[in-house]
Amino acid sequence: MTVVTRSEHDLLGDRDVPADAYWGVHTLRATENFAITGTPISAYPHLIDALAAVKEAAALANEELGLLEPAKAAAIVAACGEIRSGKLHDQFVVDVIQGGAGTSTNMNANEVIANRALELLGHAKGEYRSLHPNEDVNLGQSTNDVYPTAVKIATVFAVRGLLRAMSMLQDAFARKAVEFREVLKMGRTQLQDAVPMTLGQEFSAYAVMIEEDRSRLAEAVELIHEINLGATAIGTGLNAPAGYAESARRHLSEITGLPLVTAANLVEATQDCGAFVQVSGVLKRIAVKLSKSCNDLRLLSSGPRAGLGEINLPPVQAGSSIMPGKVNPVIPEVVNQVAFEVIGNDVAITMAAEAGQLQLNAFEPIILHSLSESITHLQSACVTLAERCVDGITANTEALRRSVENSIGLVTALNPHIGYTAATDIAKEALVSGREVAELVLEKGLLPAETLADLLRPEVVAGSGQALA
Amino acid sequence: MTVVTRSEHDLLGDRDVPADAYWGVHTLRATENFAITGTPISAYPHLIDALAAVKEAAALANEELGLLEPAKAAAIVAACGEIRSGKLHDQFVVDVIQGGAGTSTNMNANEVIANRALELLGHAKGEYRSLHPNEDVNLGQSTNDVYPTAVKIATVFAVRGLLRAMSMLQDAFARKAVEFREVLKMGRTQLQDAVPMTLGQEFSAYAVMIEEDRSRLAEAVELIHEINLGATAIGTGLNAPAGYAESARRHLSEITGLPLVTAANLVEATQDCGAFVQVSGVLKRIAVKLSKSCNDLRLLSSGPRAGLGEINLPPVQAGSSIMPGKVNPVIPEVVNQVAFEVIGNDVAITMAAEAGQLQLNAFEPIILHSLSESITHLQSACVTLAERCVDGITANTEALRRSVENSIGLVTALNPHIGYTAATDIAKEALVSGREVAELVLEKGLLPAETLADLLRPEVVAGSGQALA
Amino acid sequence: MTVVTRSEHDLLGDRDVPADAYWGVHTLRATENFAITGTPISAYPHLIDALAAVKEAAALANEELGLLEPAKAAAIVAACGEIRSGKLHDQFVVDVIQGGAGTSTNMNANEVIANRALELLGHAKGEYRSLHPNEDVNLGQSTNDVYPTAVKIATVFAVRGLLRAMSMLQDAFARKAVEFREVLKMGRTQLQDAVPMTLGQEFSAYAVMIEEDRSRLAEAVELIHEINLGATAIGTGLNAPAGYAESARRHLSEITGLPLVTAANLVEATQDCGAFVQVSGVLKRIAVKLSKSCNDLRLLSSGPRAGLGEINLPPVQAGSSIMPGKVNPVIPEVVNQVAFEVIGNDVAITMAAEAGQLQLNAFEPIILHSLSESITHLQSACVTLAERCVDGITANTEALRRSVENSIGLVTALNPHIGYTAATDIAKEALVSGREVAELVLEKGLLPAETLADLLRPEVVAGSGQALA
Amino acid sequence: MTVVTRSEHDLLGDRDVPADAYWGVHTLRATENFAITGTPISAYPHLIDALAAVKEAAALANEELGLLEPAKAAAIVAACGEIRSGKLHDQFVVDVIQGGAGTSTNMNANEVIANRALELLGHAKGEYRSLHPNEDVNLGQSTNDVYPTAVKIATVFAVRGLLRAMSMLQDAFARKAVEFREVLKMGRTQLQDAVPMTLGQEFSAYAVMIEEDRSRLAEAVELIHEINLGATAIGTGLNAPAGYAESARRHLSEITGLPLVTAANLVEATQDCGAFVQVSGVLKRIAVKLSKSCNDLRLLSSGPRAGLGEINLPPVQAGSSIMPGKVNPVIPEVVNQVAFEVIGNDVAITMAAEAGQLQLNAFEPIILHSLSESITHLQSACVTLAERCVDGITANTEALRRSVENSIGLVTALNPHIGYTAATDIAKEALVSGREVAELVLEKGLLPAETLADLLRPEVVAGSGQALA
Repeated sequence: MTVVTRSEHDLLGDRDVPADAYWGVHTLRATENFAITGTPISAYPHLIDALAAVKEAAALANEELGLLEPAKAAAIVAACGEIRSGKLHDQFVVDVIQGGAGTSTNMNANEVIANRALELLGHAKGEYRSLHPNEDVNLGQSTNDVYPTAVKIATVFAVRGLLRAMSMLQDAFARKAVEFREVLKMGRTQLQDAVPMTLGQEFSAYAVMIEEDRSRLAEAVELIHEINLGATAIGTGLNAPAGYAESARRHLSEITGLPLVTAANLVEATQDCGAFVQVSGVLKRIAVKLSKSCNDLRLLSSGPRAGLGEINLPPVQAGSSIMPGKVNPVIPEVVNQVAFEVIGNDVAITMAAEAGQLQLNAFEPIILHSLSESITHLQSACVTLAERCVDGITANTEALRRSVENSIGLVTALNPHIGYTAATDIAKEALVSGREVAELVLEKGLLPAETLADLLRPEVVAGSGQALA
Repeated sequence: MTVVTRSEHDLLGDRDVPADAYWGVHTLRATENFAITGTPISAYPHLIDALAAVKEAAALANEELGLLEPAKAAAIVAACGEIRSGKLHDQFVVDVIQGGAGTSTNMNANEVIANRALELLGHAKGEYRSLHPNEDVNLGQSTNDVYPTAVKIATVFAVRGLLRAMSMLQDAFARKAVEFREVLKMGRTQLQDAVPMTLGQEFSAYAVMIEEDRSRLAEAVELIHEINLGATAIGTGLNAPAGYAESARRHLSEITGLPLVTAANLVEATQDCGAFVQVSGVLKRIAVKLSKSCNDLRLLSSGPRAGLGEINLPPVQAGSSIMPGKVNPVIPEVVNQVAFEVIGNDVAITMAAEAGQLQLNAFEPIILHSLSESITHLQSACVTLAERCVDGITANTEALRRSVENSIGLVTALNPHIGYTAATDIAKEALVSGREVAELVLEKGLLPAETLADLLRPEVVAGSGQALA
Repeated sequence: MTVVTRSEHDLLGDRDVPADAYWGVHTLRATENFAITGTPISAYPHLIDALAAVKEAAALANEELGLLEPAKAAAIVAACGEIRSGKLHDQFVVDVIQGGAGTSTNMNANEVIANRALELLGHAKGEYRSLHPNEDVNLGQSTNDVYPTAVKIATVFAVRGLLRAMSMLQDAFARKAVEFREVLKMGRTQLQDAVPMTLGQEFSAYAVMIEEDRSRLAEAVELIHEINLGATAIGTGLNAPAGYAESARRHLSEITGLPLVTAANLVEATQDCGAFVQVSGVLKRIAVKLSKSCNDLRLLSSGPRAGLGEINLPPVQAGSSIMPGKVNPVIPEVVNQVAFEVIGNDVAITMAAEAGQLQLNAFEPIILHSLSESITHLQSACVTLAERCVDGITANTEALRRSVENSIGLVTALNPHIGYTAATDIAKEALVSGREVAELVLEKGLLPAETLADLLRPEVVAGSGQALA
Repeated sequence: MTVVTRSEHDLLGDRDVPADAYWGVHTLRATENFAITGTPISAYPHLIDALAAVKEAAALANEELGLLEPAKAAAIVAACGEIRSGKLHDQFVVDVIQGGAGTSTNMNANEVIANRALELLGHAKGEYRSLHPNEDVNLGQSTNDVYPTAVKIATVFAVRGLLRAMSMLQDAFARKAVEFREVLKMGRTQLQDAVPMTLGQEFSAYAVMIEEDRSRLAEAVELIHEINLGATAIGTGLNAPAGYAESARRHLSEITGLPLVTAANLVEATQDCGAFVQVSGVLKRIAVKLSKSCNDLRLLSSGPRAGLGEINLPPVQAGSSIMPGKVNPVIPEVVNQVAFEVIGNDVAITMAAEAGQLQLNAFEPIILHSLSESITHLQSACVTLAERCVDGITANTEALRRSVENSIGLVTALNPHIGYTAATDIAKEALVSGREVAELVLEKGLLPAETLADLLRPEVVAGSGQALA
């Protein structure tokens, strides 16, 4: 099979690229240089869309400032629009983990947009004299402002999906909190029986945790609305004329619908990865909480006979290839694993951020990759947990109530009436003898029977503090 | 030597404690159980002060609600006041890393306060019938609300010192930014010569980074003003009567001067370590930036003859036991190491937070320890870096200017005039031949001499974008 | 479009699966339950091959022990052979990150093998009465021994590729060590000029580092030749008759060509992930060294004019979308990023290993995923670094020699002759005055001219210690 | 109060040091420069001993080679001997976390040894013309070979203590394995009831885990018997004459009793921290296993009434300040926290190792600090866990046996007799109806009563596989 090619030229010489490829020589070399993950950047559609948005905004700013002729600008804008509507994504072929601080990603975009714009203007692909990837599409830009700006916008888009998924999970927990609001159970600290509470309170806590995490994530994402477009190579704005940064920002805000702001100090903004570290730190926080909640769900549903057996997770698949009838908490388990991955990714992002040198951080591609993975996997995990687990949880109400009535922890409620020291003696005797707390208190004449009955009503013990939100 | 002792009693039986010890049997057992780090909690004075503040607030609330007789309350308040003024800290002897979710720390405080209060009331130490560590000092409380509340207050106090140190460092960088505002130099991306900038812009970026990190830290610390005092054992508020949580919070706010708020959902607040994870995440962010800045300082001062040699760090000690005259960047190096420690601590805190189960996280002691270490070491690092390094930095102005004039990167400024393609050819030829960019442009007649001279004036190239803040 | 289906049954009821699918109802449910990464296990061909090898060995052992009739065994063996020759991999469709400790992966294998074996026996897919995924293919096995055994074998296979790539990189460095064996240069400690050495010594160190790491990796991989096949559910070997474990191990060793051993304590082996933690720890060590070496390469090649400029990396692509002629160290940069990823993966693996409970670690799928990623990306990184960077490195020999002759560090060689104190004074004066060390020594009459010339010959200074290996 | 002082001189000028201090001007400056942790290196007695051993070995080698006059050598050897016998440790005052790659630690040692040797020779402290810290004590050495060599020896010494503590813990688990060898219980996978086993098997697994980890640690420690003494500044051995490295190694082996070897490539050895990364990786592995075991102990002892309640940990202190009679698993909890710390330290060590540049890693002080902390805390944790927890564990034998008899998991043993499909139906019905497996099998006539009774004997089910080691 003969591949029809066209010849392109760059700093290193001439190379043939397939005639029908929208990408060009820079992309070709990058695909040869970076054969690491096998995952092309097209697997990150938010990034492709964000790149197109940045290039479109830059073209409009350049036209506005009289630097780019209207016909070229229109063609670039049209090409970017096509990309943002989902077309040509398959032309974004460079490996997501790449050296060069994202230059290959930027050049891949410049080439695809240039060649599509050339077509729209009636030229053949590769006729760069008519419209050039660097001189026109990349006009007034550098990888060093384009790439982080695109990564930020892509991250904002991706986080929206995660926030929605977290809301879904929060709602699922909150519905169970209502459903279980009268289910009495023993609370536990350090895995030891503590004092009574309701299962509703337990699930309410999970809902509140996620709500708080959503707030933290929304705050962190605010930080990445600050962009450095207009900084060009190192933040001095070389080759970007007065007015360009502001115009490009305005167009980009309009295109994306995001309230973007230009960093006050572009030199700092160009080398700084702090906002990514912060977002990843919050994703790690979310992972920690999700994992803790899943640990609890697995613990509370342990059994069916030799475990805590407080709740039942909905069975979603047979649990064992050898043990008949076994059903496992597979959904919480997969969420735990996503959490571990996110926590690991945070370390990778931290190291990449720390490794920046002087005016640039060359390691943003791994930051993009790890952040994207953390966000999308957390999103899948939240939806999966909500739909395939939490929604179907049921409670073993009767057994839970018996565990409260039978508990030694009830004695805590007597502290204010018989004192910690006397209560300790009762607890000790109950433990050794296996007898009930109430029985012992009466036997020792520490409290009259009615008072005691009143004090030990589980609902009172569980409810004496917080009302359920 | 005979140690005079008194006998105390707890759940496990009788034990002799030294007669002059303010701590009692619970503390004794804890010191025997936890011989891990050898570092007692007295090494964390903010924590001791915060514990005393919590106990004082609780006593005042209990008195207000009629649960504690005024004389006892007054004695407890007086004992706490003494502790907060720096006395009795040596009585806080339990190991900082301890099992039991901080119970030993809480009991150490209860016992010291009870025994000091007993003395103030004219009793001997150990006469707990007159005033009891659990029944009076700990009245209406549980370790599970006291300990995290105290850790939060201690962290707020500690962070203040860090914020001050960061300001000091920011100012030091900012002063240098002004001092170096006219020192031209080559900016670098990916360690390769890029385009000109000023050394002032470079140092300004360091100042801005720290300023941003201060803002992030201040925001994160807001989160730990939310406390769960009044939650008691698991957040249901068992044994804490109506009004107690609010009264205790009010008194604690007054004592500490902090705008504390009670968490809306105390069950959630009692098991959640999210705020600590968030604070640690921001400390990690600070560490990343500090480390990056120190990497830069070491790189820019490399030499004296076979390095970049752009700046000189003040010599603070002889650098080598074998190489005469060698001076090393020891201050940035020690800051780098603190950063690595902080990043490691963040992983420890993350794991501890993830390991919480059901209604409590039993691993808050390691969180306290790691957070404290990160905060105080970062504080020392910032002060040390400001005073012993940044303040004394000087620039090799002439050599820096020559490097700009001699650079190939200047050609970037010609892009808008001769195009990226032609500029690439010039750059290539300059590199191979060792000749100057301007010389080659003139030789090829690409631009008239005056225009060229104008475009390549380093000040113009460096300053065409951002003004220095 | 109508999809022709067959009906299958499991613990949860009946489900239709596509008639032409080799997988069945358990796989179907798993694909619905785990939509996390979008990456099916078929993306891990070593794992698929290893699973088939395990199933084949088990069938042979079962036949040998008279538990499986020869015809069934033959059909299973044939199906496994097909898979190991690369067929049917597209039928392995469950997500790599999955709950259930790998049960879905094991059942996917059981179903594909059963259905292919059924076909080979002349039956239709799904006719499990004739040959059953659980009762025949999984006979005497549990996910809990099959899955970790397969992961170990897959890891051994994958590590072989990495070891080869490391050898390739070691050789590339070693060739440069020879090529540069007479290139004198200044050695540096703490980025400050130290004493002379050869560039060959510098590259030799990189080669030796990799050689050592290869040894460590080979040692660590030994550990994962210990398998728990025959342990069944929890290590008690329930349902695996006497002789089964040994027979299965023997067959598996033959099939894979690996010297596998059965763990002495199968209960321990079934719950333990220590060997994976160890392998990952060594991968992290490799990443640390690779990253350090790449940091050095980027530093030594910094410039071209305002950097150290000691070596030149081969240009592999244009470096900048805005700065003409710029060439960046993109290959070392991509290797750095892989290193950060591997270090992050180690944290994920650590957390997954720590999270095991009682008789099993349910989180091995993320361990498999992270380990595989670390191994394959490191392999790509080593090959890329060797072929696209190290092989083409050249030295700026003249400039390097001048830096030695011009250095202050030469004075160190005079310590034994004039003493550290006098040498310090010389060094100080040289630094301040910009004069040469030799000139000052002569001026002060500290040594006769010939002696001095002899002592300061760079070759002598550099070579007085180690011969180049 | 007047402090009597003596004046000392270094590169930076003159400074007064207390007349009675054995340390001198270099140490003074270092204490001023590094006020980070407040922990002096005297808190690391193994390091001080190792430094003295290195200096002693160097003096003997120098004497042997005729470079150091015998009287000086004897005085240095005597001073080092005193230090190794525990004297003068309080003179090692520099902060453990320090810049300068350990130069301050080395100079602190040089100064203390020089001044003590001066005294032994009848001179006053500070009379360095008679015996000089750099020219005599440090003769033929550099911080860059002395410090890592000392850190390695100190680590070998420290690890011995850890290995002993691990043996103690292993023995404690092994004794319980024997004690519980006939205690039947349900094994669990994924927290769900699986199949029967013995509690002895469970504890045996913990013993075996530690045994394996001990082997891994012993192997890793082998690596740090390779030293770079004789490398001097960068590994070229400048100023160390032929024969020195070998002689110093021989003396150091004799002094320490360790089979030390000199690295084959000293340039590589001087910059490489791989062995520390490896040791830390194994410490992390140990931490992972210890943490997992402690998680299990806490889980198995959960209750006393609403938990698994399989075993009882010995009560070592009252568990709660509010809940009378509560006893918590405080010992496993403190071990968990040490594990988290060790895992965090591994990240710090990893980052420090990765940050090495060119011929040296300047960040070894944080590696020393973190490694030491990990080793000594793990040692304390193992001893504490053995003595205060494992030794006193008791089993609730009767309840455990009932849980087996009552379990559904027994049905797994019937797979070979009634098939997985039929067994699944039985399990399902047992779960829904709450009835016994045996009852249902008989009712359905699947097996004759005697056969069934035989197959379901718990001892048979638990023991059908592995014998207890």
